[in-house]
Amino acid sequence: MKLLKSWVESANSATTDFPLNNLPCGVFSVGDEPARCGVAIGDFVLDISALEAEGLLTLADQPLFDVPFWNELMEAGPTVWAEFRAQITAMLTEGASKRWIIEDHLVPRAEVSLHLPFVVAEYTDFYAGRHHATNVGTMFRGAENALPPNWLHMPIGYNGRASSVVVSGTDIRRPWGQLKGPEFEAPIFAPSRRFDIELELGAVVGQASTHGQPVTVAEADAMIFGYVLLNDWSARDIQAWEYQPLGPFQAKATATSISPWIVMKAALEPFRTATPPRDLPLLPHLVEPGPMLYNVALEVGLKPNNGSETVISRTNYAEMYYSAAQQLAHHTTSGCAMNIGDLLGSGTISGPTKDSRGSLLELSWGGKEPFAIAGGSRSFIEDNDTLTLRGAALGDGYRIGFGACWGKVIPALADPYARKT
Amino acid sequence: MKLLKSWVESANSATTDFPLNNLPCGVFSVGDEPARCGVAIGDFVLDISALEAEGLLTLADQPLFDVPFWNELMEAGPTVWAEFRAQITAMLTEGASKRWIIEDHLVPRAEVSLHLPFVVAEYTDFYAGRHHATNVGTMFRGAENALPPNWLHMPIGYNGRASSVVVSGTDIRRPWGQLKGPEFEAPIFAPSRRFDIELELGAVVGQASTHGQPVTVAEADAMIFGYVLLNDWSARDIQAWEYQPLGPFQAKATATSISPWIVMKAALEPFRTATPPRDLPLLPHLVEPGPMLYNVALEVGLKPNNGSETVISRTNYAEMYYSAAQQLAHHTTSGCAMNIGDLLGSGTISGPTKDSRGSLLELSWGGKEPFAIAGGSRSFIEDNDTLTLRGAALGDGYRIGFGACWGKVIPALADPYARKT
Repeated sequence: MKLLKSWVESANSATTDFPLNNLPCGVFSVGDEPARCGVAIGDFVLDISALEAEGLLTLADQPLFDVPFWNELMEAGPTVWAEFRAQITAMLTEGASKRWIIEDHLVPRAEVSLHLPFVVAEYTDFYAGRHHATNVGTMFRGAENALPPNWLHMPIGYNGRASSVVVSGTDIRRPWGQLKGPEFEAPIFAPSRRFDIELELGAVVGQASTHGQPVTVAEADAMIFGYVLLNDWSARDIQAWEYQPLGPFQAKATATSISPWIVMKAALEPFRTATPPRDLPLLPHLVEPGPMLYNVALEVGLKPNNGSETVISRTNYAEMYYSAAQQLAHHTTSGCAMNIGDLLGSGTISGPTKDSRGSLLELSWGGKEPFAIAGGSRSFIEDNDTLTLRGAALGDGYRIGFGACWGKVIPALADPYARKT
Repeated sequence: MKLLKSWVESANSATTDFPLNNLPCGVFSVGDEPARCGVAIGDFVLDISALEAEGLLTLADQPLFDVPFWNELMEAGPTVWAEFRAQITAMLTEGASKRWIIEDHLVPRAEVSLHLPFVVAEYTDFYAGRHHATNVGTMFRGAENALPPNWLHMPIGYNGRASSVVVSGTDIRRPWGQLKGPEFEAPIFAPSRRFDIELELGAVVGQASTHGQPVTVAEADAMIFGYVLLNDWSARDIQAWEYQPLGPFQAKATATSISPWIVMKAALEPFRTATPPRDLPLLPHLVEPGPMLYNVALEVGLKPNNGSETVISRTNYAEMYYSAAQQLAHHTTSGCAMNIGDLLGSGTISGPTKDSRGSLLELSWGGKEPFAIAGGSRSFIEDNDTLTLRGAALGDGYRIGFGACWGKVIPALADPYARKT
């Protein structure tokens, strides 16, 4: 597919994340004005709430954008999603007759604050990256037992905490937690010493399923509204002590950052790619009827407080062993109802090489092999480091980007209960 | 404390779950009328939404009961919770002057349908029963390693699925899932063969905490609005295959039944009791400043389709090693934000004896020792069995009950994907 040309000149640049082909969904505000729905186009945000309020965008009998989140468009369903893209594309395309009206609703991106683009119903995080699972398994259980026996048969996942989800740019406070390493006789309560990222993509569920009724992989794919970048902040030392036998809990509850823009599935269609070959055949209900991963180039930057950023990892979403559609189908096998606004983390996206690992745990091999950054080295995150995820599907002369997903890790509270004196 | 006498005669019976001392919160409807908020009193439901609409109950500038859930009262905070109880108690107390007005708003309980009493924000399930954890650990890891090393230091829990929560009386369809026992070479996709209950109490969080700010155990106790009976339906065979390394997922996602009535914390105050003595000292932030468990007698009944019910277990909530307040405090240690409507399952409440175990897994010792019921025996749930949890705090001549929490297990779908032909 080629670049769709827009009369918004900055949208025609080969380096913008937001050409006319993209039209990602966000929520923005300017100064003290109320937050509203917008679409990124080049260096601007198109004010979707205002367009609808003025009757320039008509999708349903009821307004869909009178609220500062995209859940109502999701609820309207895939036909309306397509109609939405068609109407916005027509407004912004080169030579559009209504340009003089639409121009009034463009806001420079440099002037806006961005907010969570949707109300997160529930959040599930998966463990579906083959290289990540192998790396972590090798570190903790040895190369022979790296992958758990179930891993090649289903996308392993756990329920996370929806209240942990924050928008890119939110400061992340280093958590306290119970820690117990070999050096401690009894657990202590202290700030995490092994605070980490996980580079993921998140799938946003845009249609609900019925309680008691599993969905097929094809149905699951149709239920997905779009994708975000997702950083599953992880306290490795809290996790190591707490996770047996019921899985990670407080280690993953501090924060989950997502990109400010949801890239709709339609924008990623030209970049569909199949999951890698299977080592073992999947049970029929998990087999993909077509390519359901996407070719999305990803990178992670680490910037110390007064230093410059080093790109510490480059990888691709196509490395995943299971697609979001397979994860969502598996999620419903027991009859579990899925809802509009559910968020599914892909699992850490690591590639096969050392420089394509999606977590510091892997990059530093459990802290045993600190890696170099400009002006120093790292094993885990240090206070005031800024971690930034970036991602884009790379088209012919254009890119479909998510905007950066970044967070600065600020020091732990001196005493989390100090106010109680 | 003594029975508070009401002019509603059936509320003065020693056998009712709903004396004037209780006033539990539910949502009911009659016929096709819209669902609304009500309080159980003896054999009746007092229509709280109607009382507020007619100006007989005034708690806030805004209406709190114009919606069919109790979250808005929760949001109003503990002072309003107390005022609510004071106003309703005055209306229903023996000799109340407004009896002739209030009587019009009593609906016979026999005529109502009951609905979920609150909007569940997120659901967390704990594993805080000492006897249950010891029994399960002994079965799977041997008596030497029964309790995981972290167990005596923190309340182990995992995030569950809020969309699984249904009100008592909802049929529970036996789930499909991936199963792999020693008899299978590769996993199969089939209906669960080891479907089970877990007898729990659920704490309903009525006040939010701030993202990034842990709360103390005392603050946590103050945030709790009330308690429900909770049945954490569990597919043991799905769980056994899926749960390593990230914990239970689809095994616990089929359904979670709760009692139709939330018993407010205030009604349970006379029954507060301390957690059992510690084997190992807790870290200071988890130590209880006072008794925060409750003496609540519990039982489980199993009734085959055309048979009579057998009570298969009798135990008490006071058996828990950790209170809901300790669980909630632990839940915030990493900075995790808690919200109004969050539901915390206690974990399975088993007592020290064989007849006080809170799951069929324990009662049948992993299926190896089927137990007797009227007219037969059971290892796990069979199709069309009805499982009923009951619970009450036993006062001097009265009981504070939750109403039954029951569910009938209906057969699995013949083919979960059959409609796709």
